[in-house]
Amino acid sequence: MAADGDGARPRTNQADLGALIAQLKASYGERASTSLAVREQHAQGFSFHDIRPADVVVMAKTEAEVADIVVAAAKYSAPVIAYGTGTSIEGQLAALEGGVCINTAEMNSILSVNAEDMDVTVEPGVTRKQLNEHLRDTGLFFPVDPGADASIGGMAATRASGTNAVRYGTMRENVLGLRVVLADGRVIHTGGRARKSAAGYDLTRLFVGSEGTLGVITAITLRLYGIPEAISSAVVQFDDMEGAVNAVIATIQWGIPIARIEFIDEVQMDAINRYSKLNYGLKPTLFLEFHGSTSGVTEQTTRMGEICDEFGGGDFQWTTDAEESRRLWQARHDVAFACVALRPGSQAMATDVCVPISRLAECVLETRKDIDAEGVVAPIVGHVGDGNFHVAFLIGPDDREGDLIIANRINKKLVERAIAMGGTSTGEHGVGQGKMAYMDLEHGEALDVMRTVKIALDPNNIMNPGKIFTI
Amino acid sequence: MAADGDGARPRTNQADLGALIAQLKASYGERASTSLAVREQHAQGFSFHDIRPADVVVMAKTEAEVADIVVAAAKYSAPVIAYGTGTSIEGQLAALEGGVCINTAEMNSILSVNAEDMDVTVEPGVTRKQLNEHLRDTGLFFPVDPGADASIGGMAATRASGTNAVRYGTMRENVLGLRVVLADGRVIHTGGRARKSAAGYDLTRLFVGSEGTLGVITAITLRLYGIPEAISSAVVQFDDMEGAVNAVIATIQWGIPIARIEFIDEVQMDAINRYSKLNYGLKPTLFLEFHGSTSGVTEQTTRMGEICDEFGGGDFQWTTDAEESRRLWQARHDVAFACVALRPGSQAMATDVCVPISRLAECVLETRKDIDAEGVVAPIVGHVGDGNFHVAFLIGPDDREGDLIIANRINKKLVERAIAMGGTSTGEHGVGQGKMAYMDLEHGEALDVMRTVKIALDPNNIMNPGKIFTI
Repeated sequence: MAADGDGARPRTNQADLGALIAQLKASYGERASTSLAVREQHAQGFSFHDIRPADVVVMAKTEAEVADIVVAAAKYSAPVIAYGTGTSIEGQLAALEGGVCINTAEMNSILSVNAEDMDVTVEPGVTRKQLNEHLRDTGLFFPVDPGADASIGGMAATRASGTNAVRYGTMRENVLGLRVVLADGRVIHTGGRARKSAAGYDLTRLFVGSEGTLGVITAITLRLYGIPEAISSAVVQFDDMEGAVNAVIATIQWGIPIARIEFIDEVQMDAINRYSKLNYGLKPTLFLEFHGSTSGVTEQTTRMGEICDEFGGGDFQWTTDAEESRRLWQARHDVAFACVALRPGSQAMATDVCVPISRLAECVLETRKDIDAEGVVAPIVGHVGDGNFHVAFLIGPDDREGDLIIANRINKKLVERAIAMGGTSTGEHGVGQGKMAYMDLEHGEALDVMRTVKIALDPNNIMNPGKIFTI
Repeated sequence: MAADGDGARPRTNQADLGALIAQLKASYGERASTSLAVREQHAQGFSFHDIRPADVVVMAKTEAEVADIVVAAAKYSAPVIAYGTGTSIEGQLAALEGGVCINTAEMNSILSVNAEDMDVTVEPGVTRKQLNEHLRDTGLFFPVDPGADASIGGMAATRASGTNAVRYGTMRENVLGLRVVLADGRVIHTGGRARKSAAGYDLTRLFVGSEGTLGVITAITLRLYGIPEAISSAVVQFDDMEGAVNAVIATIQWGIPIARIEFIDEVQMDAINRYSKLNYGLKPTLFLEFHGSTSGVTEQTTRMGEICDEFGGGDFQWTTDAEESRRLWQARHDVAFACVALRPGSQAMATDVCVPISRLAECVLETRKDIDAEGVVAPIVGHVGDGNFHVAFLIGPDDREGDLIIANRINKKLVERAIAMGGTSTGEHGVGQGKMAYMDLEHGEALDVMRTVKIALDPNNIMNPGKIFTI
């Protein structure tokens, strides 16, 4: 997808840029890099947007350094783009107007674990796997799992979620507080360690999901959960999509506290079978996971089996065997690789929407029709407990431009359909550049309120400009 | 508590005020009232702040009317205060600079119930009891329960919660979307019906808890939950506060999905025994409620009994009998009346803080010491699963001013202690006027960010001015 032409000019003139780079090199030495390879590597993420490198990439080690870099950039009105692990999907990392990329990967300390309060405070470069590894001996874990081993800072900035949001919520529900460097270099804290508060505006949730456009996140306090005593996994296949979705609706209405409920369509099941050497039927399928006490998990699983049976689910296979579960979920986690293996040399372009669950079957089926009408292969998987699903378009290697045109055409219909159904243009990938065109349709006048907030907090528009909306 | 002197001047000159009132009377006839009795009745809520009536109270019936009234007020820079049921506690309703009070009580339609999606959209004047009555046949309910039969609009504006937030969350977690009339009369919608979204700034949560200072909420979309198959209630008494709190911590860490876990101190138990004609020991006590399947509730209750036993809890009495449960929780709900009955003719001034749960016992015990040192009677009850507790000070009838001075002295120490412990000045009552003095201590520089957002969205400061912070 081509970047927005209007944003293509560098913001800062050459003389100012030279002065800024000289200042950063003087302060940070080799940690301030102008190498094209380094700059390009920081500018793309997992997106198909044009690579638009920043003018300089700085590896920050502390919050004070982040503030210092922001102040330096602000002095020359140069844009600031924060970088975690580079796993964002919608072109969030492109430096559309040049400027400074702040890599926070080395800000990866776990600042404090409060086991009694079940919270943790981390620097933004800590990744979710690193965090859970660190927590293992405490009996606690952090549940939000977007698939990629993303940084917690990036996950907060994108309002990430993933497979188990249906039970544990998204970053919106699980960030208790933040520290943020603002566009003028001020450092603030938001929220705190109390589980709830009615003390003023919810700035925490204003920054969560703001995709670096309001400030750079330098610390995150997160809710943790007890590692469940027992876990069971199940797979059940349906003759049609409606049966699978109706089973999901019934599950949620029954209040079964299911931890994961993933839908995989027949195209993706084919890909999974081939890639993970499994032997499932090529049917709409639910992958399920239950967390709880030993007897609680048995009860949940049994009841879910009954529900699936009622809605035409086939043989309900479940297990509490850790190795068997691991293999099952590994197959689910490998869907991106499995997709790409359908057409060697291609890359997967993922899009996501989220709709009220009563509209999910219709939304998926109409999208499947669009895909089939275009004659392309594009598996659909979804975190269906939330009404959230993804389409993975295979791009390249033979006709990358043509593939992108088709993918974007289907994507446009999909997003407009989701919004018309009372849903949203993105459940978890964020807006970046890729969903900007739909913000007006989704938000109407409220988009202007977002702009007003942005301009108030970042009047020179230096924080990740050209993302979410243009000013 | 006296109102802030600086805010005591009327904002609008007499001529403009006359014109504004004439316009409102012309449009709304008898629904626009300037009667002192009506105006005073709308200006106090459950607070001890001075009664500061608006100049005119208008009963609005539609969103379009709210917008029209706001536009009229804006024309004369007159303040706008939204009113739901008048149950706010921290002086949120006082018209410190005069202006227009918009009563939304007649905007009480339930606009749509989506049973499959487990959401509902309501007008702001719908009360929580009205909503749950309406939902009864659907098998769904709305869990947030602040005690009073508050309006949903007021609950959203105050970020209310209550006894079962530990399981179901607060208004922060349960509002999916809003419609809001802004200070310039524009009407926006925020959020939507999707369970999650990563599409831009989280304006929903910016308005939730903003206490009418950013706009008037005209519709609210809420998450609903299935009415649990089984409910059990339990009471357990401890020799000391620490045992009770440690049992709570263990419960949460074990992941027991407890629905209510209420702490009641020995002073309040005495009040409850007298008022509700019960016969509990005068000890730190937990009231508990479990929701789930029949076997799930039995398992939760049994395990909780074991935990309480481990931490020195006495006889663990539990029941699934609806009538017995009702009597128990009625006693809990009547704590305010029970308090007041300790000193006939007095009124209860309630304050609330929320701290990380590991600090809860210490915070409560130090507060109890402060209360005892002042020689006053002030029961403590708390939603301890969240680390949230209330102190009820008895004010009057003999020395109202003296009682308020003592209450505010203890309150100040309590709030400063809670903030020093990493907690918050208010878990669920909001800031209003009562907690304004602590905002700087709690938020530091972030308070200026709140002000910046406020000024950007309401440059003439007409929306409930003088609450949360001064401009």
